[in-house]
Amino acid sequence: MKICVLPGDGIGPEIMAQALRVLDALRTDGLPFETETAHLGGCAVDATGVPLPDETLKLAKAADAVLLGAVGGPQWDALPREKRPERGLLGIRKELNLFANLRPAILYPELANASSLKPELVAGLDIMIVRELTGDIYFGQPRGIEVRNGERVGYNTMIYSESEIRRIGKVAYEIARKRGGKLCSVDKMNVLECTQLWRDVMIEMAPDYPDVTLSHMLVDNAAMQLVKNPKQFDVVVTGNIFGDILSDEAAMLTGSIGMLPSASLDENNKGMYEPCHGSAPDIAGKGLANPLATILSVAMMLRYTFSQEAAAQRIETAVKSVLAQGYRTGDIFEPGTRKVGTIEMGDAVIAAL
Amino acid sequence: MKICVLPGDGIGPEIMAQALRVLDALRTDGLPFETETAHLGGCAVDATGVPLPDETLKLAKAADAVLLGAVGGPQWDALPREKRPERGLLGIRKELNLFANLRPAILYPELANASSLKPELVAGLDIMIVRELTGDIYFGQPRGIEVRNGERVGYNTMIYSESEIRRIGKVAYEIARKRGGKLCSVDKMNVLECTQLWRDVMIEMAPDYPDVTLSHMLVDNAAMQLVKNPKQFDVVVTGNIFGDILSDEAAMLTGSIGMLPSASLDENNKGMYEPCHGSAPDIAGKGLANPLATILSVAMMLRYTFSQEAAAQRIETAVKSVLAQGYRTGDIFEPGTRKVGTIEMGDAVIAAL
Ligand SMILES: CC(C)[C@H](C(=O)O)[C@@H](O)C(=O)O
Ligand SMILES: CC(C)[C@H](C(=O)O)[C@@H](O)C(=O)O
Repeated sequence: MKICVLPGDGIGPEIMAQALRVLDALRTDGLPFETETAHLGGCAVDATGVPLPDETLKLAKAADAVLLGAVGGPQWDALPREKRPERGLLGIRKELNLFANLRPAILYPELANASSLKPELVAGLDIMIVRELTGDIYFGQPRGIEVRNGERVGYNTMIYSESEIRRIGKVAYEIARKRGGKLCSVDKMNVLECTQLWRDVMIEMAPDYPDVTLSHMLVDNAAMQLVKNPKQFDVVVTGNIFGDILSDEAAMLTGSIGMLPSASLDENNKGMYEPCHGSAPDIAGKGLANPLATILSVAMMLRYTFSQEAAAQRIETAVKSVLAQGYRTGDIFEPGTRKVGTIEMGDAVIAAL
Repeated sequence: MKICVLPGDGIGPEIMAQALRVLDALRTDGLPFETETAHLGGCAVDATGVPLPDETLKLAKAADAVLLGAVGGPQWDALPREKRPERGLLGIRKELNLFANLRPAILYPELANASSLKPELVAGLDIMIVRELTGDIYFGQPRGIEVRNGERVGYNTMIYSESEIRRIGKVAYEIARKRGGKLCSVDKMNVLECTQLWRDVMIEMAPDYPDVTLSHMLVDNAAMQLVKNPKQFDVVVTGNIFGDILSDEAAMLTGSIGMLPSASLDENNKGMYEPCHGSAPDIAGKGLANPLATILSVAMMLRYTFSQEAAAQRIETAVKSVLAQGYRTGDIFEPGTRKVGTIEMGDAVIAAL
């Protein structure tokens, strides 16, 4: 089991260190992991001049899974577009063909107070957002900024083919089948032809999944319904840009994005796993960051890439138990709980394993 | 002062009737309104075969302002794209050049409980979202669904020119100047060139508005920040599709979209005014709908098109006073308040005028 480790920028290295300790604990237990570390994002720009060096891409391609910390930071914001850290992220997604982004939005009972929403609306929240990750307006051609009739014009292309929609649809239907059996496809079919095709294909696939109830929602309504009554959702499937917006909105409903992992998968369950939160440059290097989302990303990796369901659940149970014991990093701290730093949180998870 | 009245579908006619009674009360007071009524949306399809009949467009063009109820309903959902009610809406926006959509998200203190969010996070919420309404991926060419390499492909074009961005920027800067002096421009410049130009132009305009503090936010982060801490925003300006999503999310933060009006303006303050909520087919014709958003749309019309600030405030004060008196339609009812229907709510506002 070969894992390519990309700590990245900001708090990335700190949280990754704790995730690797958890992996190590499992290795001692008999799971034969090998890891290799490389640069992605701002640190790669500093080391090599580009955000996704060939060496990193080679290692990532050769590995079974990629574990990523976080990329980005203000010191790289002024760089030209193709050198910015997030280009590295977009590049590795596309190069590894990681078209299926799974973004769970789960509210742990112990953290219910952290939500902006009233507890009765979010207690027990458990949504899985399935976002298409290698198509749509993110990669569509033509794109650019150019002068037309004497003024600048900026343009991008939203585009999906039937086969792209079908393969993300398959992932979403299969996840819905293993969960609550409800799949909500989000589009803007009343305005965008591209998403009309999206809806058509989702409907065409429905007969293959008689055990899944398919519904449709317009993206503006979905943004509202997530606020109004988030628990109405089980699995949500949508395109890259709508998924970017809605998965962040859904994550924030929990109030604790420091807890949320994500997986980005290709057609053979190879995947890249990363926390949903960013690189938090403001607290980087201070030992304050919450490593739990990265640790939970390890659990997702064990589940989706390595089919080690028992080991995945062991990590998830350990995380629940440290929460129950009252351990909290600053981002999820409330009076009456026990404030710890990044390393102590890692210690607590390992102890609970 | 010529007003074109488009009651539309569903609850549209009921709520419009109350808004017109309020207008009538002001007419008796000396404001010389003339109104003419026409069909838009589903009712227009039924009457004429198209959602935006020429006759309607002619009346709307000849008027100083348009007052719209709501359009759409399930009975027209199966129609081909170009005949659906929302085509009428998109058509009239484009034909009248209504590029500036103002969508306030205001939480009335009396209705604080209606919000999904904890009261301390939303009490006193007052955001103005300025959404560009006649450009972007809504109208961009090329667009369509076609067969390429043996499979269907759906595509749309996101596009903005410098002058389009500049004219909506001007509206937003000027509104920010009259409000709290804070303008947040929302884009996805880290991925989309189109919105990189958007950000560039917003920055280029800043020196003309030294009294306004400009900030920028990525759309995914904006969707999060609206949930996390909505009161950080004063005026938000963004493109058509991001504005569609964020303005609905912001509206739902208040928990009472039955209260929210909107304005869509051209370059000469001609405008179309409509409630943010939809046509609510489920309660149509039952006398249950909340007419306050439509009545408040009349206030916006008086302010923006007719520069009758005093009359606008008179309506707004009357609405606040009926809320303070405890009048509530079903959508905003809570125990201890007085449940009324559409007409009684209209009566109460007129009495409070
Ligand atoms: C950093 C950015 C390019 C990226 C995206 O938009 O996909 C991020 O927001 C995400 O959701 O992973
Ligand atoms: C009905 C639809 C076309 C419309 C839009 O997307 O603009 C609506 O959602 C709105 O916000 O007014």
